[in-house]
Amino acid sequence: MNDTAGVGRRSRGGGGGAARRAERTAVRQEFTRFIERNIPNLDILNEEALAIIEANAETVLEEIGVSFVDNPAALARWREAGADVKGERVRLPKGLARKLCATAPAMFTQHARNPDRNVVIGGKGLVLAPVYGPPFVRDAEGGRRYATIEDFRNFVKLGQMSKWLHHSGGTVCEPTDVAVNKRHLDMLHAHMTLADKPYMGSVTERSRCVDSVEMSKILFGADFVDQNTVMTSLININSPLTFDPIMMDALEVYASANQACIISPFIVGGAMAPVTVAGTLTQVLAEVLAGVAYSQLIRPGAPVIFGAFVTSIDMNSGAPTFGTPEAAQITLGAGQLARRLGLPYRSAGAFCGSKLPDAQAAYESANSLNIGLLSGVNFMLHACGWLEGGLVSSYEKYIMDADQLGVMHRLAAGIDMSANGQAMDALREVGPGGHFLGCDHTQANFKNAFWRTDLLDYKPFETWEEEGARDTVALAGVRVKKMLGDYQAPDLDPGLAEALSDYVARKKAAVPDAFV
Amino acid sequence: MNDTAGVGRRSRGGGGGAARRAERTAVRQEFTRFIERNIPNLDILNEEALAIIEANAETVLEEIGVSFVDNPAALARWREAGADVKGERVRLPKGLARKLCATAPAMFTQHARNPDRNVVIGGKGLVLAPVYGPPFVRDAEGGRRYATIEDFRNFVKLGQMSKWLHHSGGTVCEPTDVAVNKRHLDMLHAHMTLADKPYMGSVTERSRCVDSVEMSKILFGADFVDQNTVMTSLININSPLTFDPIMMDALEVYASANQACIISPFIVGGAMAPVTVAGTLTQVLAEVLAGVAYSQLIRPGAPVIFGAFVTSIDMNSGAPTFGTPEAAQITLGAGQLARRLGLPYRSAGAFCGSKLPDAQAAYESANSLNIGLLSGVNFMLHACGWLEGGLVSSYEKYIMDADQLGVMHRLAAGIDMSANGQAMDALREVGPGGHFLGCDHTQANFKNAFWRTDLLDYKPFETWEEEGARDTVALAGVRVKKMLGDYQAPDLDPGLAEALSDYVARKKAAVPDAFV
Repeated sequence: MNDTAGVGRRSRGGGGGAARRAERTAVRQEFTRFIERNIPNLDILNEEALAIIEANAETVLEEIGVSFVDNPAALARWREAGADVKGERVRLPKGLARKLCATAPAMFTQHARNPDRNVVIGGKGLVLAPVYGPPFVRDAEGGRRYATIEDFRNFVKLGQMSKWLHHSGGTVCEPTDVAVNKRHLDMLHAHMTLADKPYMGSVTERSRCVDSVEMSKILFGADFVDQNTVMTSLININSPLTFDPIMMDALEVYASANQACIISPFIVGGAMAPVTVAGTLTQVLAEVLAGVAYSQLIRPGAPVIFGAFVTSIDMNSGAPTFGTPEAAQITLGAGQLARRLGLPYRSAGAFCGSKLPDAQAAYESANSLNIGLLSGVNFMLHACGWLEGGLVSSYEKYIMDADQLGVMHRLAAGIDMSANGQAMDALREVGPGGHFLGCDHTQANFKNAFWRTDLLDYKPFETWEEEGARDTVALAGVRVKKMLGDYQAPDLDPGLAEALSDYVARKKAAVPDAFV
Repeated sequence: MNDTAGVGRRSRGGGGGAARRAERTAVRQEFTRFIERNIPNLDILNEEALAIIEANAETVLEEIGVSFVDNPAALARWREAGADVKGERVRLPKGLARKLCATAPAMFTQHARNPDRNVVIGGKGLVLAPVYGPPFVRDAEGGRRYATIEDFRNFVKLGQMSKWLHHSGGTVCEPTDVAVNKRHLDMLHAHMTLADKPYMGSVTERSRCVDSVEMSKILFGADFVDQNTVMTSLININSPLTFDPIMMDALEVYASANQACIISPFIVGGAMAPVTVAGTLTQVLAEVLAGVAYSQLIRPGAPVIFGAFVTSIDMNSGAPTFGTPEAAQITLGAGQLARRLGLPYRSAGAFCGSKLPDAQAAYESANSLNIGLLSGVNFMLHACGWLEGGLVSSYEKYIMDADQLGVMHRLAAGIDMSANGQAMDALREVGPGGHFLGCDHTQANFKNAFWRTDLLDYKPFETWEEEGARDTVALAGVRVKKMLGDYQAPDLDPGLAEALSDYVARKKAAVPDAFV
């Protein structure tokens, strides 16, 4: 198996002179296509349990209902669709939400400006995207500090250079040195110019969603954006059972434009949902049903993803906890519910509560990554870089997690049962007491036989000690610097680059800075 | 769900005065019964693939065969059983090994001197035992150094105090300050007196196996040992396809005494087996079939475990690598093969190649622990404390891994689908926009709603920083000291204790020390 689909391919749409292209030939940027699973999912719930949860979710929607806050237009849409609307409470007769969800596609393609990096979201696919949202960054040298636009750009560059990452993501950290009402412009500009992987749109205000669509039209062409999905954006549900107007504005802008949304309950178990797994799954399903149904009221056929951001809680401190067994069970169960609903599924990530990229962080993250893979997740946000419960984007952890994503690729590829995979020739050649290192089969296969880390240390103890007895953070720090040093921007037509910069400059100049 | 089955229960067989019992009442040693899975296994191979591997393994046994080295008695047994024996090579007609394996039990009970700590090995059970074999120990203060008998006793004490650990294990580290030909006596004495969990016997020489049986007869009574399994010992196969005489001696002693053996290929993929997963699985199955069949020639019905110690290899350095996707696939596939053979399965562990209990160690270990659980492993050696490819028993990592074993317990318990688990009352009580922290359902359930760490840090950043910004190793170091400080030996009849000490003293005095 060859994990890396290609090296150094450049944007087809990109311009640039022949001289520059020649100069760039030396740059080898490895990348992989999204994962296509060839292993089964782990179905933790049996048919009876699934039926109970589905029936309970319908009961929740019918008897308890959901709230669409400060949103008369949404209430009108719901009334017209046959819901029972009283005040801001929307109660859905059993079956209505599921029926409305039926128009949402089971999978869709999100286009990248480099078509080699298009991703298919749904089915057996797994698309990996980096951490989203932290206001802080941390690295070993600088410690923990507020994130800046320079950090943001660095993380986009690391994403572009990370071969196991399929998606450039969205708010890889909050650039707190840029005005709140303008930072989305700089963030989008960074994703569009410093990377050629697919990206996410802004969701923090209606006009910022519009900007996201407009800038995408510059990058891809207006016609292309009308006809294709070029953004997947994150719409959180205010759990329990509440849909806030800003998020619904964003959903409306994107769904209307046929752009994809993750419709995602945001749950700290025991606070925003019941303390039990089955209760949480019921609430997650009810919320997603209502949210996806609403997206289809806006535009039938709009691409959406069944989201589930779920953590458990430390009942002593109220802190969210990650990599826990309850979160694992919810992630697994929600995957089954998503597949029965015929929707792509977003969950999991390299979640951790630790303040440092230490063993705690790695245990928690590995638990969550493994379970995410086996849950049938199709879109994994936060697949690398997440630290301290999502408050921090960590440079070193980004590299550490991103390396582990390679493990997932290989595991998901399944077991090669070809004649070469069966290796009977090798067994015959070597026989009892021999060794396989030099045999023909090994020689023919060793290059791609095993996943290879780009980070972890396998050296003998003495060598490792002589080289400074470095831990994983130290090794990752070296790699961060190397990757940022090696980074080269993917080609982009200078006309498009200028048009994007003009748009950003014009929008920034139009209004004063706001920091709230 | 209440994970902990009991607290402070004492050996029923133990004597001691009423005064001492009263004095001990204050000691609360939590423990859990072995895991009984209520979640499915992850079956990575389909029926067709399994059939291919099984057919290939039979071909290996028939055409290539296995070697029983320096072991005329074994060759005679094989000849009598219908094998084709030429020199030391034993070729088994198709079906013979599988037929002989049929007398091995699908599950068995290993008794502990405290009957509350008996374990059932097989079926849906998972018994967790600590690291086995390292000549070195490491802790944050003392660094890496040769292990001593004091270290050994410390690790036995930590095992006794670790609530998620079901088994005291065997060579938790090599006590290198005790003569090679006598250290098994001190090791067994430590397991028997400092812990009351089940333990493993020595396998390094026939007379040491006999000592293990004899000491067990002192502890349990000779009749009890004749009729019950009180040891599970580790018999490695010299992969590829070779059975060495020392290991076969050990198997013979234990199987004859109806004591359990793990029959375990020891494979660094690419060196002792083909570089492919399917090829390795074929070899593993062939080796286990031959080894288990041989155990049943010694004594039909002797309890055995289908073992698979499998790592991949770094093709650059030749170092074994852990927590890799190839090892995961083999672990998963071998579990399916073991279940089809109707045998208990041993594999996985908190494996890592890292020199330090850092993020690398934790990623690798978590990968292996998660896959071990989902592979249907019934006996997991090395479930905590393993460091540096098995060269080092780490005090801190022991604590870190042992804490993660709690995650496995809870995940394996499955999802509670009772009315309380469904939590419809909570959903009705709280409704849209509320929160669940104070609701009746949460109040009634919060105490056992979520797995609780005994180690990891969930504190707010500021608190954590004020307390010294400790990483996981530092937190684990504190806990090591506390557990060793809190440790109290489980009651043991003074007569038995004296008899055990006498046996050790007598055997030690009988021969001079040997350090090879």
